[in-house]
Amino acid sequence: MRNNFYIVIVAGGSGTRLWPVSRENSPKQFHKLTSDKSLLEETYDRIKDLTESENIYISLGANAALQTKAQLKEIPEANYIIEPEGKNTAPAIALISAKIFKKDPQAIIATIAADHTVKNNSNYTETLKSAAHFVDKNPEYLVTIGIQPDSAHTGYGYVKIGRKLDNEKAHEVEEFVEKPNLETAQKYFDSGKYLWNAGYFIFRADKMIEMFENYAPEIYSGLRAILKAIGTEDEKEIIEKAFKEFPKVPIDTAIAEKVEKIAVIPADLGWSDIGSWSSVFDLLDKEDGNVHRGHHVGIDDKNCLFFAQDKLLATVGLEDIVVVDTPDVTLICKKDKAQEVKKLIEKLKEQGKHKYL
Amino acid sequence: MRNNFYIVIVAGGSGTRLWPVSRENSPKQFHKLTSDKSLLEETYDRIKDLTESENIYISLGANAALQTKAQLKEIPEANYIIEPEGKNTAPAIALISAKIFKKDPQAIIATIAADHTVKNNSNYTETLKSAAHFVDKNPEYLVTIGIQPDSAHTGYGYVKIGRKLDNEKAHEVEEFVEKPNLETAQKYFDSGKYLWNAGYFIFRADKMIEMFENYAPEIYSGLRAILKAIGTEDEKEIIEKAFKEFPKVPIDTAIAEKVEKIAVIPADLGWSDIGSWSSVFDLLDKEDGNVHRGHHVGIDDKNCLFFAQDKLLATVGLEDIVVVDTPDVTLICKKDKAQEVKKLIEKLKEQGKHKYL
Repeated sequence: MRNNFYIVIVAGGSGTRLWPVSRENSPKQFHKLTSDKSLLEETYDRIKDLTESENIYISLGANAALQTKAQLKEIPEANYIIEPEGKNTAPAIALISAKIFKKDPQAIIATIAADHTVKNNSNYTETLKSAAHFVDKNPEYLVTIGIQPDSAHTGYGYVKIGRKLDNEKAHEVEEFVEKPNLETAQKYFDSGKYLWNAGYFIFRADKMIEMFENYAPEIYSGLRAILKAIGTEDEKEIIEKAFKEFPKVPIDTAIAEKVEKIAVIPADLGWSDIGSWSSVFDLLDKEDGNVHRGHHVGIDDKNCLFFAQDKLLATVGLEDIVVVDTPDVTLICKKDKAQEVKKLIEKLKEQGKHKYL
Repeated sequence: MRNNFYIVIVAGGSGTRLWPVSRENSPKQFHKLTSDKSLLEETYDRIKDLTESENIYISLGANAALQTKAQLKEIPEANYIIEPEGKNTAPAIALISAKIFKKDPQAIIATIAADHTVKNNSNYTETLKSAAHFVDKNPEYLVTIGIQPDSAHTGYGYVKIGRKLDNEKAHEVEEFVEKPNLETAQKYFDSGKYLWNAGYFIFRADKMIEMFENYAPEIYSGLRAILKAIGTEDEKEIIEKAFKEFPKVPIDTAIAEKVEKIAVIPADLGWSDIGSWSSVFDLLDKEDGNVHRGHHVGIDDKNCLFFAQDKLLATVGLEDIVVVDTPDVTLICKKDKAQEVKKLIEKLKEQGKHKYL
């Protein structure tokens, strides 16, 4: 395989469920949640040997550029694909495809998240290689990675696996399904036929542009304008105009659920999207049943996450509680309600307390 | 009654159970826990009209003098009775008695705590007046105030009430009993014969000195030296020497439980010694079942105390939890374990973390 393999770290999300560490202007990927490296640094380390460094890109909002440069000096600024505004993943992937198409129309592109954790790094890289190899042989295919579930998780969408497509790991996607309730999730899990949809896609640049043309005309018109403008002095302006008009839509519904040639590669990654403080608790090492970070003193606490920062955190008799201290906000949350941190953010917005967001 | 009535606000304790607001160098009485005044200011306001301002004294450690001056400008510095070191209430009352005896041997002295709360202020002042009146007529008596209990509290010592002593409110004390377990406390409460021992004493200065002579010789020798030294240039040094030698002992065991002429005046005060954050919760007004102070945003919390300070406190799904934020420590504690805050302090001491104490 000639080196037309490109990896794009997609760093678009804001990760509000990990507030107050994650903020609008300092989203989840920049934070050291599970180790002494940020999620972004860990993501880069994980993929850096898969292709040449000039083929590694990052897709992000303009407000995240400075912090990205500070953390990831390895990615040249020319490889920053900057979205003028967040319009979910379909417009993001349209822009990514256009930018890389202009350099290499037959580029094989893998888009991966900047803010997930993975335990089985070698499975992760092997899976991406398999996907690239499959797309190299079957360029008309859009490939997604399907995570082998380790529980009946209700926080993820699922992919139902179909017949095997080649001698390697790719299978047809039988269907994509939305986040299920617990009963359905348990059925999926027990069946062994459903995988978590991690939102990682691998495709050829030229073919992705065709997919937008065929399946997402509301994005294709802007995409065509962008393709024309790239490299001209109007580029920035045209991209801004296109993004203003793009609908907010994920690549899943805009393309992946519509195309016929969609494949999934199952992978056992020890993966998490760290979608809540409860996930952070699950991922980290425990001492006396609790997770301790920073300066903490406690008596009779059980199954708690303690993230201290500048202050001493002192606790007595807590059970299943998450405490996250930051310089201006202290969050204290029942662990099984950690998903509801989003509601706090909505409440603060209503109250006009934007400085905390 | 000629005005030989003296009131001494005893501000000796440190109130570790209200840590981290209460600290070694800034004990409980200086803090605004239940209103926009400190407990000390509230105490002064409660008694200031009971006697002339020159008859109001305060007993305290040297480290508390500056903060006391800042809060209570009304008490002249000459009325500060400064303990060189804390040796519990018997030595404190010996020093108080000596100081005031020198001014007025037949002074009737009421010693009251600086850091309690009272709801029925008029009952409080009437009770102190009755006690003073009783001592005026019966100077050989030591009088204590017995609080009408409103629950089977296990955190207080009890006084068993005996026969009535005069036409007024005073009764003989049948016995003092230590903090009971819940079963015993319930019996006491149901019997109607037991009162909470608030540790307020009313006595005549000369008679108290005689009581030390008769019942507490280990304190009386120092007391006699102090009596001689008051007004001389050796006063400070002699007091320091005496306190070095005084045993640490409460007035209850040194005197009150030994003397025959001990009376109690029952009083319905709506009183609390605010012995834990759980008491603070009980005392304060609730909104949606929670107590809110400072900047707090919450979802689905029940029966919680939120004391925010400089940071935003954000909570989800908490039940029966106390959160107290201070500039360098955040305490989070199950409400029914609020008494165990003491253990945290011991732990910090063991760890050499004195800056938090």
